[in-house]
Amino acid sequence: MTEEPVWTDSEIRRADSIMGSGRRENKDSVARSPTGSLSHHPPSPPLTHSPKEVWKKGGRMFSVLLAINLVLLACTLVSSGAFNEVAVHDYDVFFMLTIMMLICIAWILFYLLVTAKRQDAILCKDSHAGPVWLRGGLLLFAILSLVMDVFKTGYYSSFYNCLSAIKIIYPIVQAVYVVIQTYFLWVSAKDCIHVHLDATRCGLMLTLTTNLAVWMSAVTDESVHKSHTKFQNTTDETHKWIMKGNLPNSKAPELRLGGCNCNSQICQIFQNGSFWLYPFNIEYSLFASAMLYVMWKNVGRLIDHHTHHIHHLKFRLFRRTFFVGTVLGLFILVSGLAVLIVYEVQVNNKSQPDKNQALIMYYSFNIVCLILMSFVSIGGSIIYRFDKRDMDLHKNPTRTLDVALLMGAALGQYAISYYSIVAVVASTPRDAISALNLTYSLLMIAQHTFQNIFIIEGLHRQPPEEDHKIDPHRKDLYGLTFVNINAVSLRVPDGGSALPSPMPDSLGTVAIQPSEIVQSIMVPKKVKWRRKFLKEISLFLLLCNVILWIMPAFGARPQFDNDRELKFYGYPMWAAIVDICLPFGIFYRMHAVASLLEVYIMS
Amino acid sequence: MTEEPVWTDSEIRRADSIMGSGRRENKDSVARSPTGSLSHHPPSPPLTHSPKEVWKKGGRMFSVLLAINLVLLACTLVSSGAFNEVAVHDYDVFFMLTIMMLICIAWILFYLLVTAKRQDAILCKDSHAGPVWLRGGLLLFAILSLVMDVFKTGYYSSFYNCLSAIKIIYPIVQAVYVVIQTYFLWVSAKDCIHVHLDATRCGLMLTLTTNLAVWMSAVTDESVHKSHTKFQNTTDETHKWIMKGNLPNSKAPELRLGGCNCNSQICQIFQNGSFWLYPFNIEYSLFASAMLYVMWKNVGRLIDHHTHHIHHLKFRLFRRTFFVGTVLGLFILVSGLAVLIVYEVQVNNKSQPDKNQALIMYYSFNIVCLILMSFVSIGGSIIYRFDKRDMDLHKNPTRTLDVALLMGAALGQYAISYYSIVAVVASTPRDAISALNLTYSLLMIAQHTFQNIFIIEGLHRQPPEEDHKIDPHRKDLYGLTFVNINAVSLRVPDGGSALPSPMPDSLGTVAIQPSEIVQSIMVPKKVKWRRKFLKEISLFLLLCNVILWIMPAFGARPQFDNDRELKFYGYPMWAAIVDICLPFGIFYRMHAVASLLEVYIMS
Repeated sequence: MTEEPVWTDSEIRRADSIMGSGRRENKDSVARSPTGSLSHHPPSPPLTHSPKEVWKKGGRMFSVLLAINLVLLACTLVSSGAFNEVAVHDYDVFFMLTIMMLICIAWILFYLLVTAKRQDAILCKDSHAGPVWLRGGLLLFAILSLVMDVFKTGYYSSFYNCLSAIKIIYPIVQAVYVVIQTYFLWVSAKDCIHVHLDATRCGLMLTLTTNLAVWMSAVTDESVHKSHTKFQNTTDETHKWIMKGNLPNSKAPELRLGGCNCNSQICQIFQNGSFWLYPFNIEYSLFASAMLYVMWKNVGRLIDHHTHHIHHLKFRLFRRTFFVGTVLGLFILVSGLAVLIVYEVQVNNKSQPDKNQALIMYYSFNIVCLILMSFVSIGGSIIYRFDKRDMDLHKNPTRTLDVALLMGAALGQYAISYYSIVAVVASTPRDAISALNLTYSLLMIAQHTFQNIFIIEGLHRQPPEEDHKIDPHRKDLYGLTFVNINAVSLRVPDGGSALPSPMPDSLGTVAIQPSEIVQSIMVPKKVKWRRKFLKEISLFLLLCNVILWIMPAFGARPQFDNDRELKFYGYPMWAAIVDICLPFGIFYRMHAVASLLEVYIMS
Repeated sequence: MTEEPVWTDSEIRRADSIMGSGRRENKDSVARSPTGSLSHHPPSPPLTHSPKEVWKKGGRMFSVLLAINLVLLACTLVSSGAFNEVAVHDYDVFFMLTIMMLICIAWILFYLLVTAKRQDAILCKDSHAGPVWLRGGLLLFAILSLVMDVFKTGYYSSFYNCLSAIKIIYPIVQAVYVVIQTYFLWVSAKDCIHVHLDATRCGLMLTLTTNLAVWMSAVTDESVHKSHTKFQNTTDETHKWIMKGNLPNSKAPELRLGGCNCNSQICQIFQNGSFWLYPFNIEYSLFASAMLYVMWKNVGRLIDHHTHHIHHLKFRLFRRTFFVGTVLGLFILVSGLAVLIVYEVQVNNKSQPDKNQALIMYYSFNIVCLILMSFVSIGGSIIYRFDKRDMDLHKNPTRTLDVALLMGAALGQYAISYYSIVAVVASTPRDAISALNLTYSLLMIAQHTFQNIFIIEGLHRQPPEEDHKIDPHRKDLYGLTFVNINAVSLRVPDGGSALPSPMPDSLGTVAIQPSEIVQSIMVPKKVKWRRKFLKEISLFLLLCNVILWIMPAFGARPQFDNDRELKFYGYPMWAAIVDICLPFGIFYRMHAVASLLEVYIMS
C-alpha cells in the first residue's frame, strides 16, 4: 500500500462513468475538504450529510431528547387538565402553550433574519419537501384557524371580567404564531440548512412539539365539549346512568367561565363558530408538524442533484379525466354530506326509533362506501402488478414519513374497530344495528389495509413523465455521456435483470440497445389506459376519503350513539379508547387525501 | 450510448479497486442474473437485498399488516379481559394465545426442517445479530420460564375440576413453545434467509406477535395480581375508599378459580412461586421479540463480507478490570437488595410511620444511585469527546433496533416521572416524602437521558481491536490489495478530511503513508487509560441497572405506596398510567444492561 497508483485524468473519468453519477464527488463538499488536491484521488462516496458534521445521529440526539421531554410534559398537563377531579386547570395548559409559542416565534424570526440569510446556509433544496398542494392546504387551514382565533377571542372577551387574562391572550398569541409559522413554512419548507445545525434542529423540534401540544390540547377540548353537549341534551334511559356521577369529563370549556353565562346572541355565535372550526385548526397543527419534521430530517443534508426530477411535474388536475371515478366520487361526496346532516338532526332527537333509523342509515352509507373503496383499491393494486414502471428507491424523507404516518395513523381506526368487534361478538342481543356495526368495523379494517397497500405502492413508482422526456445523450456534470437506467423502463419479464438499486443512480451506465429506448419511448395504448385507470382510482378514493374525513371531524360519533360498546366496556374505558384513537383515525383520512393526490399526479 | 465501451479485465479490476470493495459485484447475484456475460460490463451496485425480490418494502408490507392486526386483536382481548365488568374472560385470552403458539410451533418446525435445509437458503449470516450474551440471557430466562410453567401447571392442576381445561393446557403448550423457540433462536438468530421469503416473513412476524401477546397477557396478569394483593391486606384509611367499589381490577387470577380455594401448602407454593417467576417470563418474551425482529429485518438481506469484523471480538469479561467501578457497582447492587427486602417487609406493615420510613429509605437509596449514575454517564460522554476512534456507520439492524428500543422504552419511565412531578408540584402538603419523590422523579428523567446518550455514543464506535490487528496488505475476494480506511483511525484534527461514509466500505482505498499506520498501531498510554475508564463506567452502570431492574420487577411499587399521585389523579387514572408505562420502564433496565455489556466489550 505504500506505492500510490498514478491515474491519468481520462482513466478517472472513465472509471467515474462506469460507476455512474452517484459516485461523483459533490462539488460543495470537495471545495471544503481540507485535504486539497483530490483530482488524483479516486472519488469519495456521495455525501448525504453536512461536511461539518461527523456523526449525524449524534447531532440529532439532543433535539430529539428535548422534543420527547416537552411532548411528555405537555401530554401530562393536557390529560390532567381534562379531568375534573385533578387539580390542573385549563389555564395552566394555556399558559404553557403560550410560552412555547412565544419561544417558537422568537426562533422563527431568528431563523428567517439571521440563519437563512447566511451565505452558506442553504446549499441545496429538497424538491420532494413541501409540495405546492401541501403548502396550499396549510394556507387554507391557517386562514380558518385565524377565523377560529377571532371567534375565540370574541367569545372570551364577552366575559373578560370573569376569566383569567391568559384565556384571552392565548388565542391572540396563537393567531400571531399561525401567521408567522405559515409564512416560515411557505418560504422554507424545502431548505436543507447547513449553518447553526444544532440551534436549527432544536428550534425545529421545539416548533414541532408546540404544534403537537396545540393539537393535543385542541383534541382534548373538542372531545370534552362533544361529550358534554351530547349528554347534556340526552333524556333517554340508557344515558341517564352514565350522567349520574359517572361522567368524568365535565370540564367542558363552556363550564369553566367562573359563574358567567353565555346568553347573548353574539356570544352564542362565537362559541358555536369556534367549535365548528376546531377540525381545521387540528389539521393545521398536524400538517405543520409533518412539514417541520421533514425540514428537521433535511438539516445538514446534501442532496445529489440527480434526484431532482420530480418537481418538474406539473400540477395538472382534471386533465383528460372526467370519467366514472370522478363522477362516482362526487356523487358519494354529496350524498355523504346529506347523510351527515340527516344523521346529526335525527340522532340528537329524543326518540329511540329515530335514532336507530339514523344509525342504520349512517352504517349503510358507510358500508357501501367502504366496499366500493376496498374493491377499487384492490383493482389499483392489481393494475400495479402489470405496471412496467420501475420502483423509485431514492432516499426521500418526505415519502418515508408519509408511509409511516399512513401506517401509524391507521392504527387508531384499527383499534376502535377491534374493540367494537369484540364487544359486538361477545354481547347480546344481536339485532340489525349490531350486525351493521360488525360489518362496518370489519370493512373499516379491510379498507384501511387495501388503501394503504395501494397508496404505498403508488408512492414508490417512478413518475412516468421520464419515459417521454428521456434524452439518451444527457450530459452529467463532468460532461460525460451516460444513460440513467432508472429512467428507462428496462425490465426482463422474469424480473431478474434490472435489479433496483438502494442508492441513487448507482446502476450507472449499462449497455442499452437503441431498439429498447425506442420501445420505451413509444408508450403503448395499454399503458395509457392503465394510467387513466390509476388516475380515476386515486381521484375516486380521494373524494371518498374527503367525505370520510368530514363525517367524524364534524361530529358524527356512532361509537357513542350506538350504545353497544358503551354498555360492554363502561363509559370511562370506551370514552378513553375512542377519544385517544379517533383523532388518529381522522388524521388518517386527511393524510390519505394528500397522499392520493400525489399518487394521482405521479400516475 | 450505442457504442459500448470495451474494457480489458485489468482495467475493470483497477476501476474496481478504486471504488473499494463495496462496489464489488456480489458473486451470488451475478451467478443468478439472467443477462449473462457481465464480465465485460461494469460492476453493479452492492446488493443489500435478495436478488429474487424487486421491492423489499413491498415484500415486508403484508407481514407487517398481519402483525399489526394480530397485535391489536390480542391487545383488545387482553385489556378487555383485565376488567371485571367486561364480559371477556381470561380463558378467551388463553385460548387465543394457545392457538397462536401452536401455529408458531408448526411454522418453526417447518422452518427448521424445510426452509433452512434448502441449499440456497442461507447465503450469509449477520454477525451482529444474536450475540452470545443475548442468546445466553434468552436461555437463562427460558429455563426460568419453564420452571414457571411447571409451577402454573401444578397450581391449576390442584383445581382441575373447577376450571376450564384451557387453563391447564395453556402452560403446557407454553412450555413446549418456549423450548422450541429457544432452540430455533439459538441456531438461527444470525440467518439471512433467501428462500420462502414471504412465508418466512409472515412466520417471523407471527412468532413476534405471539411473544408480544404473551408479554401483554403476563404484564396484565401480574399487575392485576399486584393490585389485588396490595389492597387485600390494606387496612389504613387512605386505601379504604379505593376498595369501596372503586377498584376495577378484581379479576386477579386467584379469584378466578370458580369457587375452589387454594389452601394446601403445595398449592400456595405453586401460586407464589409462579408469581415470583413472572418477571423472567416477561423478559424472555421481550428478548425473543427483539431477536425475531432482527431476523425479520435480515430476511432477503445480502451482507458485504467486509463488515464482519465485530464477531471476532472475544468475550473477555473482567479482563484487566477490578477497580472502583466494579467494586462500587457491586456495593450498590448488594445494598439495593437489602433495601428492597426491608422495603417489602416494612411497606406491607399496618403502621403508617413504618411505611413512611420505608419510603424515605427507598427514595434515598434511589436518589444516591441515580446521582452517581448520572455523573458517571456524563463523565463517559465527555471521555468520548476526546476519543479518536471513528464512528461506525455501517448498516446494522441490531444496533438500530437497540437504539430505538432504548429511546422508546425510556418513554415509559419519562411519562411516570412527569405525571409524578405534576402531582407533587400541584398538591399540598409539601412534606419530606413529597420532596424526595420530586427529586427522585427529576433524577429519573436526567439519568435516563444521560445514560441513553452514553450508550448510543458507545454503540456507534468502532471496536478498538482493529487498531492492533490491521494487516496493511489484506487481500479482498479478487485478490487485490486494499486498505480499509474505516479500520484505521485516521482523522485530521479539524475532522474534515476523514469524512465518514454512510455506506459500507465506500471510502475504499486512499493513499495512506506508512508513518500514519505505524502511528495508529502504537496505542498511546492516554488511550489505554481512556478505555479503562470507559470499561469501568459501563460495568458500574450495568450493575446499577441490574438493581434498578430487580426492584420494580420484584414488586417495589412506591408509585402506589406513596399515595400522593393516587389521591391527585384518582385510582383508575393513576393505575392505568403506571400499569401501562412501568413494564416499559422495567424492560428499559434489562435492555440497558444488554447494551452496556456491548459497550463494555467494544471499549
